[in-house]
Amino acid sequence: MAAQYVSVNGGLVLADDAKIGVSDLAMHRGYGIFDYFKLVDGKPVFIDEHFDRFFNSAREMHLDTGLNRTQLRSTVEELITMNNMPASGVKLLLTGGYSEDGYKMGVPNLLVMQYPLNFPKENALESGLKLASYNHVRQLPHIKTIDYLAAVRLHPFLGENGLDDILYHKNGIISECPRANFFIVTAREIITPTSNILKGITRSKVLGLNIDGYRVVERDFGLDEMFSAKEAFITSTTQYALPVTMVDGKTIGDGKIGTVTRQVRHQLYKLI
Amino acid sequence: MAAQYVSVNGGLVLADDAKIGVSDLAMHRGYGIFDYFKLVDGKPVFIDEHFDRFFNSAREMHLDTGLNRTQLRSTVEELITMNNMPASGVKLLLTGGYSEDGYKMGVPNLLVMQYPLNFPKENALESGLKLASYNHVRQLPHIKTIDYLAAVRLHPFLGENGLDDILYHKNGIISECPRANFFIVTAREIITPTSNILKGITRSKVLGLNIDGYRVVERDFGLDEMFSAKEAFITSTTQYALPVTMVDGKTIGDGKIGTVTRQVRHQLYKLI
Repeated sequence: MAAQYVSVNGGLVLADDAKIGVSDLAMHRGYGIFDYFKLVDGKPVFIDEHFDRFFNSAREMHLDTGLNRTQLRSTVEELITMNNMPASGVKLLLTGGYSEDGYKMGVPNLLVMQYPLNFPKENALESGLKLASYNHVRQLPHIKTIDYLAAVRLHPFLGENGLDDILYHKNGIISECPRANFFIVTAREIITPTSNILKGITRSKVLGLNIDGYRVVERDFGLDEMFSAKEAFITSTTQYALPVTMVDGKTIGDGKIGTVTRQVRHQLYKLI
Repeated sequence: MAAQYVSVNGGLVLADDAKIGVSDLAMHRGYGIFDYFKLVDGKPVFIDEHFDRFFNSAREMHLDTGLNRTQLRSTVEELITMNNMPASGVKLLLTGGYSEDGYKMGVPNLLVMQYPLNFPKENALESGLKLASYNHVRQLPHIKTIDYLAAVRLHPFLGENGLDDILYHKNGIISECPRANFFIVTAREIITPTSNILKGITRSKVLGLNIDGYRVVERDFGLDEMFSAKEAFITSTTQYALPVTMVDGKTIGDGKIGTVTRQVRHQLYKLI
């Protein structure tokens, strides 16, 4: 069920009435940043890390958040209380603001929106995700901007071909999925790329896990190394860890969820 | 003076009341396309070319324009009549539409907006523009999407350094300015890049000009060739042709508007 309320610049508004003037720079120049965290049993998960990243993204893009950290926290709490969706996602969205000439930044608009969580289908957990590799680097990948032009454009292609997501690489060196980080598992290592990525909060949690017999390592690797991996998986706020069993039509490992992926997923659940 | 009316999905709305719901995909994922043409003495200039490009951009990004060409034309004409701004710019903006999950495309929102024209300051015509080169390629540069993340982010930097605009290059090979095409003038040629650019309507008009003693050529060139050019200029719908006299603090030619730039500008005026 959709959320009843949205917060617009610190004030609660009925979702159906929540609107933004047509001169906003997000609409004219795709200029904005966001962050997204989940609520489990009504409680925000890793909210401090998400707030850190949100304020950092704003600073990097020269956008004033309008609210300070304490005020934003109150705004989020008020919204959560009013919407009463104990299992949900909360999105903080900060736009380039109303621009007189459609190019220069204005005073940013700050939206806080709540969404029902879409849990992965049970079969995605067992049979895994099918990805298509794509040579692309998001501009400013280390900042959580609203730039998803390439990914959204490819969405119809994924649907037509029974694929679940895209895996970005740059001339064969893997980086990330549009909305998730990527990991492979080799004989003794769990490896995740370090270049041209957004450093996900869930990714950082995986880096801190203890998986018996494995070191968790940050380093770049290519498509070839991925195709010879034992397992592959993605991580994200909504998906925790999900197995990847096929890329470009080729099977990864034995094509089923691996024991390491299962352990990572289990440990993330325990952590949250 | 700002326009009084805006067209939202084919209907006229007072500009102050023109709003879009907060679930639009332009706001969430920077997903949308646009085009922009000018009115001179109340008459649209090169509107057929701009419409061609607009419908092509929509098709490339899998966005349904909602209105066909005839309907869009009527919408534009109605808006122009109501706003009564004989010297102005008209922007067609097509967004990714309302998205339930903030990621998948919805039914696009179509906005038509009118703006006062900002004519270049008289001194820009004579003393020319100062640019800063920047290693960047817009994603999907051949499509007129709303992706201007890099350019808008650099805008404060330009202001602080007394610069007018950015000149994109890829590892030294020049492409374009964020909102304009770029030309250099050598002993016998007027040259404009052909790779990683949006093919501007004004650029296409320059390609068709007859400038005595010069061939107009489309080919890529590097920063070095630019620094040894006799003249450089940009072209755009609003600016016609404007001289570029400095890039990265180095003077181009003799640092003043050149005779070829002056002729190009003059011929564009006559054409329009």
